[in-house]
Amino acid sequence: MLPADVVSSLTRVDVEQASKRIAPYVHRTPILTSSTLDDLIGLEVHFKCENFQRSGAFKMRGAANAVLQLSQAERKKGVITHSSGNHGAALALAGSLSGVPVWVVIPENASSFKRRAIERYGATIVDCGPTLDDRETMVRQVGDETGATFVSPYNDERIVAGQGTAALELIDSVPDLDEVWVPIGGGGLASGCVVALQDSGARVCGAEPELADDAYRSLAVQSIQPALPPITIADGLRTALGTITFGILNAYRMDIRLVSETDIVAAQKLVFECLKIVVEPSSAVPLAALLGRAQDRENSGANGASRVGVILTGGNLEFQSC
Amino acid sequence: MLPADVVSSLTRVDVEQASKRIAPYVHRTPILTSSTLDDLIGLEVHFKCENFQRSGAFKMRGAANAVLQLSQAERKKGVITHSSGNHGAALALAGSLSGVPVWVVIPENASSFKRRAIERYGATIVDCGPTLDDRETMVRQVGDETGATFVSPYNDERIVAGQGTAALELIDSVPDLDEVWVPIGGGGLASGCVVALQDSGARVCGAEPELADDAYRSLAVQSIQPALPPITIADGLRTALGTITFGILNAYRMDIRLVSETDIVAAQKLVFECLKIVVEPSSAVPLAALLGRAQDRENSGANGASRVGVILTGGNLEFQSC
Repeated sequence: MLPADVVSSLTRVDVEQASKRIAPYVHRTPILTSSTLDDLIGLEVHFKCENFQRSGAFKMRGAANAVLQLSQAERKKGVITHSSGNHGAALALAGSLSGVPVWVVIPENASSFKRRAIERYGATIVDCGPTLDDRETMVRQVGDETGATFVSPYNDERIVAGQGTAALELIDSVPDLDEVWVPIGGGGLASGCVVALQDSGARVCGAEPELADDAYRSLAVQSIQPALPPITIADGLRTALGTITFGILNAYRMDIRLVSETDIVAAQKLVFECLKIVVEPSSAVPLAALLGRAQDRENSGANGASRVGVILTGGNLEFQSC
Repeated sequence: MLPADVVSSLTRVDVEQASKRIAPYVHRTPILTSSTLDDLIGLEVHFKCENFQRSGAFKMRGAANAVLQLSQAERKKGVITHSSGNHGAALALAGSLSGVPVWVVIPENASSFKRRAIERYGATIVDCGPTLDDRETMVRQVGDETGATFVSPYNDERIVAGQGTAALELIDSVPDLDEVWVPIGGGGLASGCVVALQDSGARVCGAEPELADDAYRSLAVQSIQPALPPITIADGLRTALGTITFGILNAYRMDIRLVSETDIVAAQKLVFECLKIVVEPSSAVPLAALLGRAQDRENSGANGASRVGVILTGGNLEFQSC
C-alpha cells in the first residue's frame, strides 16, 4: 500500500497523451444545454454527456488508457479487476476491442443488469462473496492463476489520466468555463479533471451524496476515510478514495458539496425531462449540488460563476415502464 | 368538411420551403445509431431524434410552419387548437417565439404533466369536457370570441409540410436510405415524409399499435375509419386520419405494420437502454415494427432493405424513479 500522502506526478501532458492514445476507442461525446435548466440554476450549464460514451460511461476512457499501455507480455496474460458496475463493463469492452482477455470479479449479489453488460463485452465473470475481503482474496487468487495484471477502478495513474480526457474535450468545446462539476466516488474522474484543467482557469468542483460523504470527510481530516455502507441511490459513488486520488484532491483542496437523496432523484428527473436523456443517479449528483447552491445564493444574494460544465458520468440504467 | 378523397397539391418544394422558413425556430436534431440495435434488427438503423426537438417533439416543425404563414391580421388575433399532447405545447412555443397569442383547448382529465408544458410556453389553456363534441364546441366558442385561427394538429397542409422537414434532414444526413419508418396517429408526420421523400428512393413505412389500427383499416377499406377508444400506451397515436392525410397515405398505398403493446414497451426499453435517450411510447412503435419484421424474416429467410431511418417522434415523458 502506498502512503496516504502519495504525490502524483501526472500533468496535463499525460492527459493530452491519453486523449490521443484512446481516440480510436472512445466517442467524443456531445455537450447538451437546456434553457429551462439554465433558468433554474441562474447559470449557463454545459452537460458533457458521458452516458453516450462507449460502454455507457466515462469509465471507458480510463480503461482504454490502461489497456493500451500494457506490454506485449501483459496483453497476452490479460487484465483483472473487481467491479459490479461501469468500470467492469468498460474494461471488458476495452479488452475485447484490443484482444486482451479480461476477468471481472463481482459479488454474487450484483444486479443481473450490470452482470449482463460485462458478459456482453466478452469478459470472464468470477463470482465472489459480498465482503471486501472476499473480493480481494478472489482477485489475488485469479491473478495468481492467470498472471493477469490488476487494473484498479480509480487508484491508478493511467486510469486518472484517461478519465481526465473528458474534461479536456469539454474545455476544448466550451473554452471559457468557470467551473467543472463532477461526482466523487473513488475520485478517478475528479482527479483526472484536476490534472486536465491545470492552468485552464476552470475550477473543478466535487459533489457527493450525504450518505456517501467519505471524500468530504477525508479532505476535512486530511486522511482517507473508509466508504460508508452502500445505502445511497448513487451506486457509482459508494467507494472510498484511493491513495493517488486522495493525494491529488487533497493537494488541490477541492471543494465538495453534499446533497440529499431527495435532491439526487429530483436532479435525475430534471435531466430526464429537460435533456431527454437517460443518466444514472450518480450522474445527477453534480446537478443536485448546483441546484442547492443556486437556492443558497437566492437566499443570500451572492454572485459567483456564470458558465459551468457538468460531467454526466453514465447512463447504464435499467428501464422500468414509465 | 372536405371530401375523404381530397387530393393534396403538396410537393417536395413545399417541404423545402418549410425547412427554410422554420430553420430559426427549430433544432436540426441529431441522428443516433447503436451497434447493439443494428445486430438485433439485422439492418443499419439511423434514429432521427426528434425527442431533442424544441418542445420535445417533431410537432414543433409543423406548428412553426403554420404560425409563420399567418397574415399580419391573423397573427394579432392569434391561433387556437385542441390537443392534450405535443401539438398543443409546440403551438404554444411557436406562438410565444413569434409573438402570436395561443389558446389550447384541453380536456379536464388531461395529465398535469402535459398541461404544465403548455402553460410553461405561455399559452392560455381552456378546459373542456372529455368528449369530441365538448372539444369542438369549445374550440368554436373561443374561436368566435377571439377571432383566433384554428390550427389542426395534422389535417392542414402547412402542418404536413412542416413535419416533412424531419425526413428532409434525415436523408440529407444519410442519403442512401431504403426506408424511413414513422408511427401513424393523425398521419401528419407520415404524410409529410411521403411528400418530402418523393423521388428520393427511400420508401416511407408506417407503424401503428394494434389497439389503434384505424389508419391500417382506413387504407384497407379506402375510407377514414374512426379512432378507437384510447387504450394504447402510445398516447400520441390515438387519433384518426384527417381528409388530407388520408388522401396522401391512400394515394401512396402506404404499408402499415401493426405492433402489440408488449412489443411497444420492449422497443421503448431498448431505446432507453441502448441509445440512452428518453422517448415516449409512441416513438418506439416503428422500432417495434422493425423488430417484428426482423423476426419474421429470420423465420422466412427473406431479405429486404439494408439501411433504414426511424423518426423518434418525441420525448415528453414524466420521470419515475428507476
